[in-house]
Amino acid sequence: MPYRIDELAEKLGASFEGDGSLIVSGAAEPQTAGEGDLALAMSPAYAAHLAEGRAQAAVVWPGADWQALGLKAAVFAPRGRLAMAGLTALMDPGPAMAPGIHPSAIVDPTADIAADVAIGPFSIIGAGVTVAAGVRIGAHVSVGPSSVIGVDGLIHDGVRIGRRVRIGARVIVQPNAVIGADGLSFVTAEPSFVELSRQTLGVGEVTIPSDPRWHRIHSLGGVEIGDDVEIGAATTIDSGTIRATKIGNGTKLDNLIHIAHNVVIGEHCLFAAQVGVAGSSVIGNRVVCAGKVGISDNITIGNDCVLGGASVILSSVPAGRVMLGYPATKMDVQLESYKALRRLPRILAKLAPRKGE
Amino acid sequence: MPYRIDELAEKLGASFEGDGSLIVSGAAEPQTAGEGDLALAMSPAYAAHLAEGRAQAAVVWPGADWQALGLKAAVFAPRGRLAMAGLTALMDPGPAMAPGIHPSAIVDPTADIAADVAIGPFSIIGAGVTVAAGVRIGAHVSVGPSSVIGVDGLIHDGVRIGRRVRIGARVIVQPNAVIGADGLSFVTAEPSFVELSRQTLGVGEVTIPSDPRWHRIHSLGGVEIGDDVEIGAATTIDSGTIRATKIGNGTKLDNLIHIAHNVVIGEHCLFAAQVGVAGSSVIGNRVVCAGKVGISDNITIGNDCVLGGASVILSSVPAGRVMLGYPATKMDVQLESYKALRRLPRILAKLAPRKGE
Amino acid sequence: MPYRIDELAEKLGASFEGDGSLIVSGAAEPQTAGEGDLALAMSPAYAAHLAEGRAQAAVVWPGADWQALGLKAAVFAPRGRLAMAGLTALMDPGPAMAPGIHPSAIVDPTADIAADVAIGPFSIIGAGVTVAAGVRIGAHVSVGPSSVIGVDGLIHDGVRIGRRVRIGARVIVQPNAVIGADGLSFVTAEPSFVELSRQTLGVGEVTIPSDPRWHRIHSLGGVEIGDDVEIGAATTIDSGTIRATKIGNGTKLDNLIHIAHNVVIGEHCLFAAQVGVAGSSVIGNRVVCAGKVGISDNITIGNDCVLGGASVILSSVPAGRVMLGYPATKMDVQLESYKALRRLPRILAKLAPRKGE
Repeated sequence: MPYRIDELAEKLGASFEGDGSLIVSGAAEPQTAGEGDLALAMSPAYAAHLAEGRAQAAVVWPGADWQALGLKAAVFAPRGRLAMAGLTALMDPGPAMAPGIHPSAIVDPTADIAADVAIGPFSIIGAGVTVAAGVRIGAHVSVGPSSVIGVDGLIHDGVRIGRRVRIGARVIVQPNAVIGADGLSFVTAEPSFVELSRQTLGVGEVTIPSDPRWHRIHSLGGVEIGDDVEIGAATTIDSGTIRATKIGNGTKLDNLIHIAHNVVIGEHCLFAAQVGVAGSSVIGNRVVCAGKVGISDNITIGNDCVLGGASVILSSVPAGRVMLGYPATKMDVQLESYKALRRLPRILAKLAPRKGE
Repeated sequence: MPYRIDELAEKLGASFEGDGSLIVSGAAEPQTAGEGDLALAMSPAYAAHLAEGRAQAAVVWPGADWQALGLKAAVFAPRGRLAMAGLTALMDPGPAMAPGIHPSAIVDPTADIAADVAIGPFSIIGAGVTVAAGVRIGAHVSVGPSSVIGVDGLIHDGVRIGRRVRIGARVIVQPNAVIGADGLSFVTAEPSFVELSRQTLGVGEVTIPSDPRWHRIHSLGGVEIGDDVEIGAATTIDSGTIRATKIGNGTKLDNLIHIAHNVVIGEHCLFAAQVGVAGSSVIGNRVVCAGKVGISDNITIGNDCVLGGASVILSSVPAGRVMLGYPATKMDVQLESYKALRRLPRILAKLAPRKGE
Repeated sequence: MPYRIDELAEKLGASFEGDGSLIVSGAAEPQTAGEGDLALAMSPAYAAHLAEGRAQAAVVWPGADWQALGLKAAVFAPRGRLAMAGLTALMDPGPAMAPGIHPSAIVDPTADIAADVAIGPFSIIGAGVTVAAGVRIGAHVSVGPSSVIGVDGLIHDGVRIGRRVRIGARVIVQPNAVIGADGLSFVTAEPSFVELSRQTLGVGEVTIPSDPRWHRIHSLGGVEIGDDVEIGAATTIDSGTIRATKIGNGTKLDNLIHIAHNVVIGEHCLFAAQVGVAGSSVIGNRVVCAGKVGISDNITIGNDCVLGGASVILSSVPAGRVMLGYPATKMDVQLESYKALRRLPRILAKLAPRKGE
């Protein structure tokens, strides 16, 4: 998508210098940029590679000597990644979804479909579903009874939306995500060994049940997803039991994440891939989870917590904590423990030598 | 689905007091319950919220003074979650699957399909498949050659069932699960560095192979799934190599779980989300895995083990153990180690101070 | 698929003894082998079970006394699993995909489709897509605009391939994998608490942003996958931002793996299930990751590294390292630390007793 430099700078709310009439039609790294590309050179380290490519224009840092870098025009970005957000949005042609309802799609006659929606091939819209204005639904999607997709939603191919799932405005769901499947909620007739071992912490005799069958607790509560949420590929968000599982406004979930039944996640959180949140836990606002974080069931994570990569959170965390480890502690405590543990073998060999040491 | 209180109590095998003719048509938490809802107030903590809602009837604990709680009728549940199982089953309208074979479904003429099955839009049933009586298959499902789905099975949308997958009676498979894909089974022509490093524990020189190519071992063994099993959304169970990967009767698997080729899982196990079991391991009966547990390849987990959240099991575990940690140990040993590790930095600062301490 | 023993040995490049005209039509474990099966008895431990089955022929180790084992013919395998690779390939009837383009498939008129490809029911091929000779695409697959599938590719059911995904020759993609979805790439207008806490390691006051919204960086770079790659079921490989995410020739990825945007993975790597690689990290050639390994963002893993089960890699690793743990260290260092930690509670009780010890 071609833009003049002056037009692009205006759309980004950025300043530029040089030839504002120069036209760029893509973004690229400095070393691979073609003549028509806008190079991304937001720091001197990146700019060093401009000579290897053929860009005539670049996004640079405030104060950069763009002429010395051999450019004909430069756009100034005080915060590089924010400029990337604006720039990539401008350059994105958007998903290839034809307007209208594809003839192969199956839409229940009781569904309420806005006039301008796109529904792709082989998709299925159930009874009583509401699809609001501006929604685009890809191919091979299924939407269960009584669910709602808010305005300007973008539902990619292969997404499964169960029954009673209410999705807010401008939500993006990546391919093959599953929203509103049944939760893992089972109970034995008599207290099970796992229930008892939570109390005994595993000390004592195993009890073998006379009836080991798991009785199923059905999931009737559905899912409620706020506005401006994004849900990653193959991520699963289970239905609540009798109330909804909830994801707050502005929260972004990456791929292969599991959100169990009854979980409540606040607003503007960011969860990286493969995070798992067990049943009925409550997560505050603006919580950031790095990849693979695990959060135990029935606990609370306060606002503004940062949970480091692969942290395992076994108990509630107050607001504003930066956590790391398994089991997770405050990050500085964890790093101290790591260092001490690394020194330990040598120190033990001195203080408490075993035979042969 | 409306029920009279006396009728509901009878179906649950529970006793009730008060107005048995009162009609409830849903279940809800005490604070959000409407006039027609049955409130779930199985403990005094929950019952405290009854006044915030409008419920006239509730499920309460044995001995609760229901009249003092402002109720017109009460159902007594000695084991709350078990009552939930019965109650939610009664209240569940079930999945929206129309009876019969949808005209868009593609059923191989050699498949053996019982008279009363439901097969949803765009689903594909392969050659030689058996679909038993009472089975309901959703939309966008594919079932590979020679596979079998036992009586009263419920296969949700987007599920992939490969070839030679035998599924028992009353099995539920959640959306986008994949059963019977090929296992990750590869071998280099000469012993690889990873094979050698298992023996040397990583000490010694790296060997760079002259031929680094991975040769594929094909997966011919299929999968065998017992009766009353449930398989979560986007969970993957790989085909065995020359014998079947097996899941025993009554076992329940949550979402995003990986069960590798040749694994054998016993009966009445319960695995939470994101558990992974590596190739050829054998898991006993009634084993409970919390979320994110990892089990190494070619090991054995005895009956009745409980594996705590995110435990990493690197070697075999005898029956009845409660395990935690990475690497997992008995839970009490692990908790002792954690406590000691937390004290360690201060103690080392005294016993073995470094410069500046 | 029936083979004569002499013919089979020749195809495997192996020697045989005994009745070369004997016909086998399947492979099985010794104890369950039928009369027409070739038993797999590559070690004395397996051979001990031959008497329990009915096999007349087996694959055995070099030097095995096959006649004493009661066999009529034996194929000799100096490297058992390599023989398995050849053998299972011979015995595999291959996926059930009818030749040609199924009438229900939707192929964009601008797509370039080789004459001999197979495209299954309800699959969708987008604008400008290239599908090379010999490619087989299953059912319910979608391929986005401008993507390329190289010769002899095998794309299983339910796979989602986004836009600008270039796949090399002979690539196998297992069911429900997602290639080329958007990366999790977001930025706040002002520096966020998580950015700051990376610098402070979590020490200091939490800052609550006046504008907590996450701005989306779009994913325009697509994915590049080399030749002879295999991608597991429900694995997700995200699109790069402005350059492609890359997977090198010969690399094999298991199920439920996450490869984030901009990641570059080298050649002939092997990743077990549930591995996660965060954004922009670079992995060398011949790297082996056991299950559940997590690799942080923006780091480098050298050639020939072996990362043990569930290792969490928080910083770059030089070539040839065998790593384990959280945070991962060299495996021998980690094992030493584990041992010291197990001794620690008893030693602390002596050296630094608390009240009551």
